[in-house]
Amino acid sequence: MYLRVLMSFAERGMRSVSSKELAREAGVNDWQVRKDLSYFGELGKPGVGYDVHGLACDIRRILRLDRARHAILIGVGNLGTAILAYGGFARYGLKIVAAFDKDPEKVGREVHGIRIQDMSQLKGLRKRRISLAILAVPASAAQEVVDYLVKVGIKGILSFAACPLKVPKKVKVISIDIAMHLAILPYHLSSE
Amino acid sequence: MYLRVLMSFAERGMRSVSSKELAREAGVNDWQVRKDLSYFGELGKPGVGYDVHGLACDIRRILRLDRARHAILIGVGNLGTAILAYGGFARYGLKIVAAFDKDPEKVGREVHGIRIQDMSQLKGLRKRRISLAILAVPASAAQEVVDYLVKVGIKGILSFAACPLKVPKKVKVISIDIAMHLAILPYHLSSE
Repeated sequence: MYLRVLMSFAERGMRSVSSKELAREAGVNDWQVRKDLSYFGELGKPGVGYDVHGLACDIRRILRLDRARHAILIGVGNLGTAILAYGGFARYGLKIVAAFDKDPEKVGREVHGIRIQDMSQLKGLRKRRISLAILAVPASAAQEVVDYLVKVGIKGILSFAACPLKVPKKVKVISIDIAMHLAILPYHLSSE
Repeated sequence: MYLRVLMSFAERGMRSVSSKELAREAGVNDWQVRKDLSYFGELGKPGVGYDVHGLACDIRRILRLDRARHAILIGVGNLGTAILAYGGFARYGLKIVAAFDKDPEKVGREVHGIRIQDMSQLKGLRKRRISLAILAVPASAAQEVVDYLVKVGIKGILSFAACPLKVPKKVKVISIDIAMHLAILPYHLSSE
C-alpha cells in the first residue's frame, strides 16, 4: 500500500514526503506510517520527510519486486479479458506472458496482444520456469485447474474464484472475493 | 473470511466445526481463530466445536449483513460485465440493481438482466437511497465519477481503478488493486 502511494507521489513529481502526507494518502494514521516504516529501518528526516524514490526502491527490494516476474492467466472470459487489458501490472514488474482457456472458439485468438492457448499447452510451463498464475475461471472449474497448475510447477496463485482452494503447503493462494469486499463496506460506513 | 469459510462448511452440510478445521480452511493458526472469535463472545464447546449456522448468523449481524443491500455498478466494460455475471453477491445479501456507462452504444442494452443506463441517470439515485457503488471505470475517469457519486449520496465505493481517490471523510472507499495482490505473491513464496 505504501509502495502504491509512493509511486503515485513519484508520478506527480514529488521527491520527498512527510509521514502525514503518506498517512493521508494511505488512509492510516501518521504514527502508523512511522511505526511501519521503522521496521524497514526507514526514518524520515525531520522537516524533510521520506525520500520518495529511495523509500519506494527499499520497499520493492523487501517485497522482491526488484526483478521482473512473469505470470500466466487461466480463463479468458470477461474477467480474464479485463485482466489482460489492465495496465497496472508493469509498475510492479509483472508481465502476463501467456493466457489459457479450454473453449476451442477462444483458443488461437489474440486478446490485448496475447494469443490464447489451449489448456493442454500448460504442460510446457515447467521449462519456462513461470511460477505465478492468475485464476479467472468459474468456481466449479477452479479446483481442477489448480491441481493441474500445481503439477506443472506453479507456486503462487491469484484467485478470483469465490471458493476455497486446496493446495500443497509450498503453494500460496491469494483469493480476491469481490463480493466480500463490497459486503464489508456497510460495516465501515455505520461504524463512523 | 470466517464467514466465507463457515458458508462453505454449511454448503457441505456440516453443522459444527472445530477451531482447527476453521483455521485450516481460513489459512490461519487455530489459536488465532479462538482469539478472533472470542472477541465476538463466541466460545466453541470442547469436543463439539462451533455451531456453523449460529456463528455465521452472529458474524452477519456484526458485519451488518443481516439485511439486503442494493448496489450500483459504474462502468460496463469487460470488468463491469464480469461483475454483473458474478453470482457471489447474493450470499452476502448484496444485489446490483442498476448499471451505468457513458458509452451511448452500451446505454439501453441489457447485460445479465440489468439494463445499462446513461450516467446522467445517476441523479435519480438519491430518491432510491442506494449507498453502495462498484467502480469499474478506467483510472483516468475514476476521480470525476467518484465526485459525482458522492454528490448523489453514495457512501461506500468499491474501486477497481488502480489510483488513489479523494473523497470526503464520511465516504469510505475500498480499493482492489489486482496488480498489487499479484505482486505480493512472490514475497510470500520466498519467505516459506
